[in-house]
Amino acid sequence: MKIKPDLENLSLTRKIFGFDENFKRKKLDVIEERPITLFLNNQEIVTMMTINDYPEYLAIGYLLNQNMITKKTRIEEVEYHDDLNAVIVRTLKVTNYEQKLKKKIITSGCAQGTVFGNVMENFRKIKFNNYSKIKKSWIYDLSKKINLTPSLYLKAGAIHGCVLCEKNRPLIYMEDVGRHNAIDKIAGYLKVEKISPSNKIFYTTGRLTSEMVIKSVQMRIPIIISRSGFTAWGVELARKANLTLIGRAKGKKFIILSGEKRVE
Amino acid sequence: MKIKPDLENLSLTRKIFGFDENFKRKKLDVIEERPITLFLNNQEIVTMMTINDYPEYLAIGYLLNQNMITKKTRIEEVEYHDDLNAVIVRTLKVTNYEQKLKKKIITSGCAQGTVFGNVMENFRKIKFNNYSKIKKSWIYDLSKKINLTPSLYLKAGAIHGCVLCEKNRPLIYMEDVGRHNAIDKIAGYLKVEKISPSNKIFYTTGRLTSEMVIKSVQMRIPIIISRSGFTAWGVELARKANLTLIGRAKGKKFIILSGEKRVE
Repeated sequence: MKIKPDLENLSLTRKIFGFDENFKRKKLDVIEERPITLFLNNQEIVTMMTINDYPEYLAIGYLLNQNMITKKTRIEEVEYHDDLNAVIVRTLKVTNYEQKLKKKIITSGCAQGTVFGNVMENFRKIKFNNYSKIKKSWIYDLSKKINLTPSLYLKAGAIHGCVLCEKNRPLIYMEDVGRHNAIDKIAGYLKVEKISPSNKIFYTTGRLTSEMVIKSVQMRIPIIISRSGFTAWGVELARKANLTLIGRAKGKKFIILSGEKRVE
Repeated sequence: MKIKPDLENLSLTRKIFGFDENFKRKKLDVIEERPITLFLNNQEIVTMMTINDYPEYLAIGYLLNQNMITKKTRIEEVEYHDDLNAVIVRTLKVTNYEQKLKKKIITSGCAQGTVFGNVMENFRKIKFNNYSKIKKSWIYDLSKKINLTPSLYLKAGAIHGCVLCEKNRPLIYMEDVGRHNAIDKIAGYLKVEKISPSNKIFYTTGRLTSEMVIKSVQMRIPIIISRSGFTAWGVELARKANLTLIGRAKGKKFIILSGEKRVE
């Protein structure tokens, strides 16, 4: 695994005391979360709660998955300011998003719904072919390898994991307090490291909601596995994009909701 | 219970087919989620994914918990447009938030981080006294009653529940795809129905992150119980506000992280 949960990084967890049901003092490991405000050039975008292990990947991935930058956008630099809890992504040119937003803000304000509209417009253009395949044994291997990897989840709970995989091998294992952050960090990694997504598999511990399916499709990853459940719209979107969606993957069991032709 | 999960409302779930690990066709109940765009007067605020059972409560609760309106804001009407996937909250006067945002937008854009800053400023002013108490037996009763209530979670999974309780009685049981929506619906209900929060207990199936603690404090509910885990910042904020935070409540077990003096 190129990136795995970093249990040596003591800034990601904290030891605290609580009381159990018999009022006995108990020492506990808990996850840290921090607010980080993201800027795109001069534009304040959002404040995110994160464990803050990879603020640069998170920032780039968030902007990509919201369609605020594209794979082709030339990034000049990413500045992370620990003291200000801020991360600033600077692009060579003013982005299309900033231009659109400027117009939108003057007429009606914050334009969050507009962002969503643009994301959906882009989503509709993407349809996966059937070239990439997945073997049943890979699903079992991946679940087992990921569940047995020492993680912040096993140490402290209250955290989600997302893993970029190839065949039966986990490559990049990201964790964060929100599963949307964990997937954004993988999106940022893919862009920065120029990794091809088309032969990859995306594994998540969280639910397969519309948000997760939209992000995977934006990232051009054709196969998703989750050990949790799924929503109707998540399944519907996966079917529209011809993405393979596998839910409730536990032990030897799983459910294929979409793109079953890819499963061998 | 005044509001409980509405299993008769067939628009909240959908029947779909999937395949199990032996490629056997399986019929499944899954949760619907819909994008709803929220407007405050002429201001576009956000697009939320929701099961959409109480768009009016959700809209009002979201605005309250983001400090975009206050308990005292006079709401003229709430319009829900099913065809447009939009809900519009109209206030008698232009809100402080809209005035602040107008100024902010002209200088630097979308101002999401600024919203967060205002929420934190307000948070620091609130500190609970020690008058309200909770008995150990209520924790057990509530967990049992809530877990045994027929719910969308038991029917279809992939959904969170939040319950407003008094003593050992669940009063309002809201579910939604995001736990932040479920708590916002309760906040909206409290305002519309003019319910006093100070003698209430808030139960959630989701994790106790900073977001959930901030929202409970904003709603002036002094006690939170969750069957899931917690984050360091969630605990820290609870301690600052002298809120009673009880996590990992399962069977006869639980952990008190903060405000243990209230537990009898």
